[in-house]
Amino acid sequence: MINFAIVGYGNLGRACEKIAHDSKDFNLVGIFTRRDPAIMNSPFGTAFYNQSDIEKFKGKIDVLALCTGSANDLTDLGKRCAANFNTVDSFDTHAKMRDYVTEMQQIASANGNLSFIGIGWDPGLFSLMRAMFQGVLKEGNTQTFWGKGVSQGHSEAIRKIKGVVKGIQYTVPKQEALDKARSGQGANLTTRDKHLRECFVVAADDADKADIERQIVTMPNYFDEYDTIVHFITAEEFDRDHRSMPHGGFVLRSGEVNGQHHNLEFSLKLDSNPDFTASVLMAYAKANAKLYAAGERGAKTILDIPAIALTDEDRIDYIAHTL
Amino acid sequence: MINFAIVGYGNLGRACEKIAHDSKDFNLVGIFTRRDPAIMNSPFGTAFYNQSDIEKFKGKIDVLALCTGSANDLTDLGKRCAANFNTVDSFDTHAKMRDYVTEMQQIASANGNLSFIGIGWDPGLFSLMRAMFQGVLKEGNTQTFWGKGVSQGHSEAIRKIKGVVKGIQYTVPKQEALDKARSGQGANLTTRDKHLRECFVVAADDADKADIERQIVTMPNYFDEYDTIVHFITAEEFDRDHRSMPHGGFVLRSGEVNGQHHNLEFSLKLDSNPDFTASVLMAYAKANAKLYAAGERGAKTILDIPAIALTDEDRIDYIAHTL
Repeated sequence: MINFAIVGYGNLGRACEKIAHDSKDFNLVGIFTRRDPAIMNSPFGTAFYNQSDIEKFKGKIDVLALCTGSANDLTDLGKRCAANFNTVDSFDTHAKMRDYVTEMQQIASANGNLSFIGIGWDPGLFSLMRAMFQGVLKEGNTQTFWGKGVSQGHSEAIRKIKGVVKGIQYTVPKQEALDKARSGQGANLTTRDKHLRECFVVAADDADKADIERQIVTMPNYFDEYDTIVHFITAEEFDRDHRSMPHGGFVLRSGEVNGQHHNLEFSLKLDSNPDFTASVLMAYAKANAKLYAAGERGAKTILDIPAIALTDEDRIDYIAHTL
Repeated sequence: MINFAIVGYGNLGRACEKIAHDSKDFNLVGIFTRRDPAIMNSPFGTAFYNQSDIEKFKGKIDVLALCTGSANDLTDLGKRCAANFNTVDSFDTHAKMRDYVTEMQQIASANGNLSFIGIGWDPGLFSLMRAMFQGVLKEGNTQTFWGKGVSQGHSEAIRKIKGVVKGIQYTVPKQEALDKARSGQGANLTTRDKHLRECFVVAADDADKADIERQIVTMPNYFDEYDTIVHFITAEEFDRDHRSMPHGGFVLRSGEVNGQHHNLEFSLKLDSNPDFTASVLMAYAKANAKLYAAGERGAKTILDIPAIALTDEDRIDYIAHTL
């Protein structure tokens, strides 16, 4: 049993809690939160603690999953926790990855801990595919497509517009761009070429729908450079059809070896982004405990961790039936 | 530069030779063959040596690619070479994998060498996908489909039938079975349910085509348990349309986390099976030299080797732009 704890109780933290609760591998020590632990409720009766008390649990937690929301919260939390615990996180700000990995490497190594960084599907499985695809097919072009899936940032941007009662945005890969990438014509595709943004909006009764639509499609950074479709729907339709958090995407590589053409493709179709991300995070939480026991220390990404770390089985047995 | 050599000069050995020749990373020391080196010719002027002289090259080869044909040849060769060299091979007899890995592990470790085993796409990339998919999505079902691609064994079986001048067999995944696997209904699919066998045959002028077709579709082990389609074509059509060695396939996993459904899918579409297999083998040959220099010893499969081993770049740089 792995003594396991979670920091943060949003969608990801909740999904990790349920997996830990349903698994025989994890003993869920508790959930750390910045909210008042006294007012927190878990469907599984998990204990809540104040996030500021986490250091008191040093030695009582084998692996800590960092599930707080924003990138800034997570880097600060990660650096603080890596000094005292083994950690897994799904840090996803690509632009800050270099600094975060470098600092976590230093802190985890100096304190004899093991931190897994950027564990999920992108970063995560998609990163692994990009690395493998590039590695085995040197001459070629890799393209990543996201969706169909909900973008929280874009959904929030819509909801801030006056007159919008409810709003959600789906990022949708364009079939034409997927076809181009598969046929080896993807090198010049931009993110805009590859995706369209589809919005579902519930407007207030007295709202000017044409003006809401104009504000969405012209919004700088978020929508103005994309093909954007806005649908106005009723609150009933919204609640019926847009409550889940599906996501997914594609990593494609098209290239040549010895003048012969080859295509590699990985795709995910997820009914629930947080539940799948949690599943990946929990698999690597278990691998963290295994590799820590085997003497590994420092900061590692999915690119550094061999697939064999994901199994409990005897190595040769596993190779014999999986290879 | 990696001092690199190849044993065996069939399709795979030739494809590795071309990649090594075209790459700045490899110094191609030579090709070892059981045929008479004096009668061998390479388009690149590579030196040929007698396979029985290979031990004389101890200390002059950093990595040796084992590209002989049959499974028996390869296990004997592997065990002999692992005592003196670092090796990479694409050993693909699943039923003998346990013994081979165990013996190679013992020999390579005892002699301070590093052997990579089962490197290609199946075993190889497909094995990695099966392991990753199972690892991150514990509850579910994985299905592997092969094709559309040429099966050498089945093609040879056709060519042995009296009256057959030329023949080739393609293994073709059935769309209906792919759809079932994607929708999570794949658990009970058999290899037969998943694939059909499509044969293209050039018959002798005086041959009884109906009898050839009957002999093919009823052939035990090879065809009798499959849906088999036989096309009779002319020698001209055969030479025009069936000279290449395409292959590919799919690894699918469909499963649940916290009651939510998720699909993972990996696919390959290869214009040339030997060229792509060689590309994977050469990428891991380079990784072998890198990991040997870092102190790794023994026998490893694609499940044991982290993706980061496939790059020359500084680790943090690589993580920063790939993760």
